[in-house]
Amino acid sequence: MPSVNPDAAKKFIKRKQLSAKEYIKGILDGDIIILSRAVTLIESARFDHQSLAQEIITGCLPHSGKSMRIGITGVPGAGKSTFIEALGMHVIGKGRRVAVLAIDPSSSRSNGSILGDKTRMEKLSTNKNAYIRPTPSAGSLGGVARKTKETIILCEAAGFDTIIIETVGVGQSETVVHSMVDFFLLLMLAGAGDELQGIKRGIMEMADAIAINKADGSNVDKAKMAQAQYKSALHLFPLTESEWEPPVKTCSSLYNSGIDDVWEMIMEYQKETEENGYFEHNRRNQAKHRMVETINEVLLGDFYSHPKIRNQITTFEQLVLDDKKSSFQAAKELLDKYYRSIKNS
Amino acid sequence: MPSVNPDAAKKFIKRKQLSAKEYIKGILDGDIIILSRAVTLIESARFDHQSLAQEIITGCLPHSGKSMRIGITGVPGAGKSTFIEALGMHVIGKGRRVAVLAIDPSSSRSNGSILGDKTRMEKLSTNKNAYIRPTPSAGSLGGVARKTKETIILCEAAGFDTIIIETVGVGQSETVVHSMVDFFLLLMLAGAGDELQGIKRGIMEMADAIAINKADGSNVDKAKMAQAQYKSALHLFPLTESEWEPPVKTCSSLYNSGIDDVWEMIMEYQKETEENGYFEHNRRNQAKHRMVETINEVLLGDFYSHPKIRNQITTFEQLVLDDKKSSFQAAKELLDKYYRSIKNS
Repeated sequence: MPSVNPDAAKKFIKRKQLSAKEYIKGILDGDIIILSRAVTLIESARFDHQSLAQEIITGCLPHSGKSMRIGITGVPGAGKSTFIEALGMHVIGKGRRVAVLAIDPSSSRSNGSILGDKTRMEKLSTNKNAYIRPTPSAGSLGGVARKTKETIILCEAAGFDTIIIETVGVGQSETVVHSMVDFFLLLMLAGAGDELQGIKRGIMEMADAIAINKADGSNVDKAKMAQAQYKSALHLFPLTESEWEPPVKTCSSLYNSGIDDVWEMIMEYQKETEENGYFEHNRRNQAKHRMVETINEVLLGDFYSHPKIRNQITTFEQLVLDDKKSSFQAAKELLDKYYRSIKNS
Repeated sequence: MPSVNPDAAKKFIKRKQLSAKEYIKGILDGDIIILSRAVTLIESARFDHQSLAQEIITGCLPHSGKSMRIGITGVPGAGKSTFIEALGMHVIGKGRRVAVLAIDPSSSRSNGSILGDKTRMEKLSTNKNAYIRPTPSAGSLGGVARKTKETIILCEAAGFDTIIIETVGVGQSETVVHSMVDFFLLLMLAGAGDELQGIKRGIMEMADAIAINKADGSNVDKAKMAQAQYKSALHLFPLTESEWEPPVKTCSSLYNSGIDDVWEMIMEYQKETEENGYFEHNRRNQAKHRMVETINEVLLGDFYSHPKIRNQITTFEQLVLDDKKSSFQAAKELLDKYYRSIKNS
């Protein structure tokens, strides 16, 4: 048998290139394969892919937005995958369609992740009303955020009315997820106190609810105790802008108990915040915020990656640390170099 | 009696202009009047004042840093002024020298504030080992932060070994204060829960300690109860980078009880964090951070105040809100306009 060069073989199964119009039609028709190919374009670094992707997104935008966007975070071991599987199957049972995305730029998962995510969520991954898309491969947090947000738009245009975004509660990605979802759920384990060590400070205050997972078997009592403790802790937090008081629930993804309760709570949140206007207010703020964030990322990125700056910033930092220059003086000199240089470029 | 034009009158009491060298010498000699005049230069928007101020700061830098910098926040009514007065007098009794600065860019206090602050802290303001400097008058938060940080440098060079920075716990200024102090104290009142409504989310997680003030008379029991509640709530928070577990104290500024306890705790914190290296680590991080913050503020400020951008940003925001453009597309177009314009300027 002759050896096969897989790259050469790929050429022969090259897919027909679709136009933006064909992509948009396919997505609006709910064609999962076309949706997947469009998301791949979003994730591509190639310029022609990017401009095609932007055209598709613009076409899908007017058909997007009609979903409940839920962010789920928790330390590794909190059982996020089984929880999402249980919640996803529950809402599919209610006639909804679920897309599961993930943000985790710190992870080294890349090509293996599709298989990984699909194995982790066995039932969801084979259900026709679910779409699982793993973390876009490496990139800046801003880049990953952009890709995830654009993927949400396409998923919504394809008729998914429940978007679940998973993240690991240990990095900066929670703030990013928080800025693109309607509801942010923190998944915890019983044994209050200790397991929080892995959660970044500030995440608890972003949560719209805490669910204590694995409340089953001999764990039930511990979970109830943790629930009481978190309840009294959350009570000390200032009121949220949404006027929603974050509840603390217990559940077991394994035994499928309490999952319905969590879902009803999310629906209750949607109802309340739609009625008091916060839901729409928050989405509009998020959209404006995203524009500003993108602008800021480019402006700062251009400065710090500029050849005139990149080489000197450590030197200037050291001068500041040695009290040779004030922070402000150092900043001013670097800025002068930068502006002179871009004006002359 | 002829009417007097106060501006014309001012000309005749014009003070002798000092050189940077004279300013530096005066400050290092602990001359409060010269210190005050230098701080006024820092706060001035005039270009010649700014360049003189920068020269003075550079000269004072090598003599700065040898103080304990304490940030104090709390909602209006928590009794910050009386607390600072009590704490300040306590540490002066221990042979220290105290400078009290304030950050509160949201307030409309400006010219009246010197009198205001001095009245609020009657004993401190007449003590020769205390220096009270009110909020620099209006300006951007970044600008106020810069002025406050530069004032700290001068105060330290003038021999103040205890710097207290006061802020109102309702705005964004806490993050700024937190980024320039060694210890961050949150002042609370008894009646756990309710009074927190005024505190911005996230502030509790920044605190190195909570002190429940006004624990006197019939309030003592309530304060003790609040103390227990906050203790158990803080216990749920993740460990701080400094490895310091934020204590909860009760005190009464009015009856001067518990103030010594708060001070001992601050000294304990200094000892512990100096030993584990966090104190120095944190200060170096703050200095680097400040340089980066200043750079970022200028880069973003230049963009958003640019005539080509300022007029169009609302239009673009509206296009995003109406789903006519994606946030990313809108950002890209604005950035293109900006870069084209500064290259051609």
